[in-house]
Amino acid sequence: MKLLHTADWHIGRTLNGYSLLNEQEQTFQQILQIAKDEQVDGVVIAGDIYDRAVPNPEAVSALNKMLREINLENNIPIYAISGNHDSAKRLNYGRDWMEYTNFHLNTFLEEAFHPIETDDIQIFLLPFFDPLDARVYYQKQGMPAEKVKKITTIADAMKLVIADMKKNFNNNKMQLLITHFSVTPNKDEEIELTSETTSKVGGLATLTADQFKDFDYVMLGHIHTRFASPDENIRYSGSPVKFNIKEARLKNKGKGVDIVTLEKDSISRVFKPLLPTTDLVVLEENWETLCDPKFYKKQPINKDWFAITIKNFDRSEHLQTNIRAELQKRYGTVVELDYESNQNDFDSQVNTTNISELSPEDTVEQFFETITGKDLSAPQKSLVETIFNEIEREKK
Amino acid sequence: MKLLHTADWHIGRTLNGYSLLNEQEQTFQQILQIAKDEQVDGVVIAGDIYDRAVPNPEAVSALNKMLREINLENNIPIYAISGNHDSAKRLNYGRDWMEYTNFHLNTFLEEAFHPIETDDIQIFLLPFFDPLDARVYYQKQGMPAEKVKKITTIADAMKLVIADMKKNFNNNKMQLLITHFSVTPNKDEEIELTSETTSKVGGLATLTADQFKDFDYVMLGHIHTRFASPDENIRYSGSPVKFNIKEARLKNKGKGVDIVTLEKDSISRVFKPLLPTTDLVVLEENWETLCDPKFYKKQPINKDWFAITIKNFDRSEHLQTNIRAELQKRYGTVVELDYESNQNDFDSQVNTTNISELSPEDTVEQFFETITGKDLSAPQKSLVETIFNEIEREKK
Repeated sequence: MKLLHTADWHIGRTLNGYSLLNEQEQTFQQILQIAKDEQVDGVVIAGDIYDRAVPNPEAVSALNKMLREINLENNIPIYAISGNHDSAKRLNYGRDWMEYTNFHLNTFLEEAFHPIETDDIQIFLLPFFDPLDARVYYQKQGMPAEKVKKITTIADAMKLVIADMKKNFNNNKMQLLITHFSVTPNKDEEIELTSETTSKVGGLATLTADQFKDFDYVMLGHIHTRFASPDENIRYSGSPVKFNIKEARLKNKGKGVDIVTLEKDSISRVFKPLLPTTDLVVLEENWETLCDPKFYKKQPINKDWFAITIKNFDRSEHLQTNIRAELQKRYGTVVELDYESNQNDFDSQVNTTNISELSPEDTVEQFFETITGKDLSAPQKSLVETIFNEIEREKK
Repeated sequence: MKLLHTADWHIGRTLNGYSLLNEQEQTFQQILQIAKDEQVDGVVIAGDIYDRAVPNPEAVSALNKMLREINLENNIPIYAISGNHDSAKRLNYGRDWMEYTNFHLNTFLEEAFHPIETDDIQIFLLPFFDPLDARVYYQKQGMPAEKVKKITTIADAMKLVIADMKKNFNNNKMQLLITHFSVTPNKDEEIELTSETTSKVGGLATLTADQFKDFDYVMLGHIHTRFASPDENIRYSGSPVKFNIKEARLKNKGKGVDIVTLEKDSISRVFKPLLPTTDLVVLEENWETLCDPKFYKKQPINKDWFAITIKNFDRSEHLQTNIRAELQKRYGTVVELDYESNQNDFDSQVNTTNISELSPEDTVEQFFETITGKDLSAPQKSLVETIFNEIEREKK
């Protein structure tokens, strides 16, 4: 069986107020073309399909069209789950009709225990859930209150969930899991990781690779770079589009999808890159350089988007200048504008990002970075996400 | 062909903050039972399926389950359109998959021109739209700008739309139209109407029955009482649940669905009543009567919901009393509480309805009533709705 693995589409996302929808649609067409060229038996979308619980109507229309093109126009099966950014209840709408054309979608924990069966493979679709979802589920299953209370971390919950899945394992088949969590490598293993995941293990909100050892292959969503994959057969595909400056800075960290071929005793994985139509270019230069035609005419002006940090910037010398307007005149779209002062005053270092456009998680992350100068570690990031998920629960 | 005609489900609606979802689900079960007992060939839902453009997740789940029960569990075709309360873009999601099981849903004007064809009948599904939608549509069709500009009222637009539908009429079949508008009788006809529709004709936002004369039968949504139907074969089914005090006051105006049998040269219509599980009881009595066990013990206390107006009420005599709490103790759920003062002071007449729970349209209507003592006429109501629809357009 040959599957295309993608995740974290975040349809409807904006970057400092600039809609990424056009870029997402362009990138989708590349994904579809790869699926057709490779003649895959299915497209896996491992959660965070939308960017938010209540996506705007343009995002709803765009996603509908994409799913339609894969599943109805090209007759390619879809295996999808909801992520922490999706509303399980909203995304669930219509799934029973979609089953008729082999579009399989799970958004609730209780839907996850019975796999989709092919001749050789059992495909388990486990959507994002949190410990409270697990407590509710196991209480309904008649688990004693005493035992239910002990489900406090996602690791506790996952142990029970996987044990229950294993009851449905068919030993003559391979087992594939599709899920959406932060999974770190085992404690005793050394794997090259991006800065996002260098922190080791544990915490309340992360899982380790060894929990998934009974599956032949795990396709993950949640972390946006494929280099965060915790194991050879436990993989993040990464998101197809660059969503922030940090991702744009990691120039060698290409975006793409995995083509995974699962055969008894043989698993192969081939990375297929996706090329941005509108790239996000990070510039960190002096004001004089930025305004110099010799410099900026070499840039992909009026085509790509720019995130610009002006170095050694003394504001008092430019009080009459509309900095953003001057830069947009030369570069086109400037989605982020920062100042790096040589005076080291806090005020001039304040990020000009429009806070109201950031997600709550990103706001915390940015605040943490501003104060400590460090990124949130993977467990810290997961903890923040867990907290906001619990807050969001009411709204969903 | 035998069809069940219903409309205006408004799933997710609240009554002064009290959720109607349980009542809507109970009533749905009656509708489903009627459809099964009558062995209908389809269920028609003529718009305003949800109560708002962004229904809450419980409403989404509830509707999904209802549609699933009709279409997937009982294999009954569905013919549905969006109304002015629905978001055309959001409700459109998934419709292409639903087609596979004969769940036909149109939410955009451009989807309306090609009917669903049965052996004997052409079923045109025309969702709610406004003149601006029509201008955009006809511009795309290559209509000269001069002519497009002249589409200013819904009557202008409907004339063009129906003319285009007629190009697809098959004279060997009957034509059924399912749509969602305010339609009044022809000028020269006298039909008994409720207060909501006594105003005659016209205005910017209403249609008259004669515009639909080329259809054999028209199933309408929009107005919540079937007694507003403008013609013998141009019918409102009414909403299945009472949504406000005014509807509760009209005790003889029963809620229900129509079973319509369409055969060449023979159209029959049978009304099937729906019984409220939790009724809405309107009481207008003196405080002493309301507190008298001889009176209140005869009421359906702790079962139905109450809308209570206290007559001849002098507040100064009850400064220490929590009126609402005292009434709830005796009656159960009091969804609306009004005072009718014998002092005629404005303050004590102010409705205690929670304004924040009202739709914008209802807020205008209530304000109009408070100031003028009269209901909005049908054209006035349509005009208000048109204005809010145009405002909502941006959000949808």
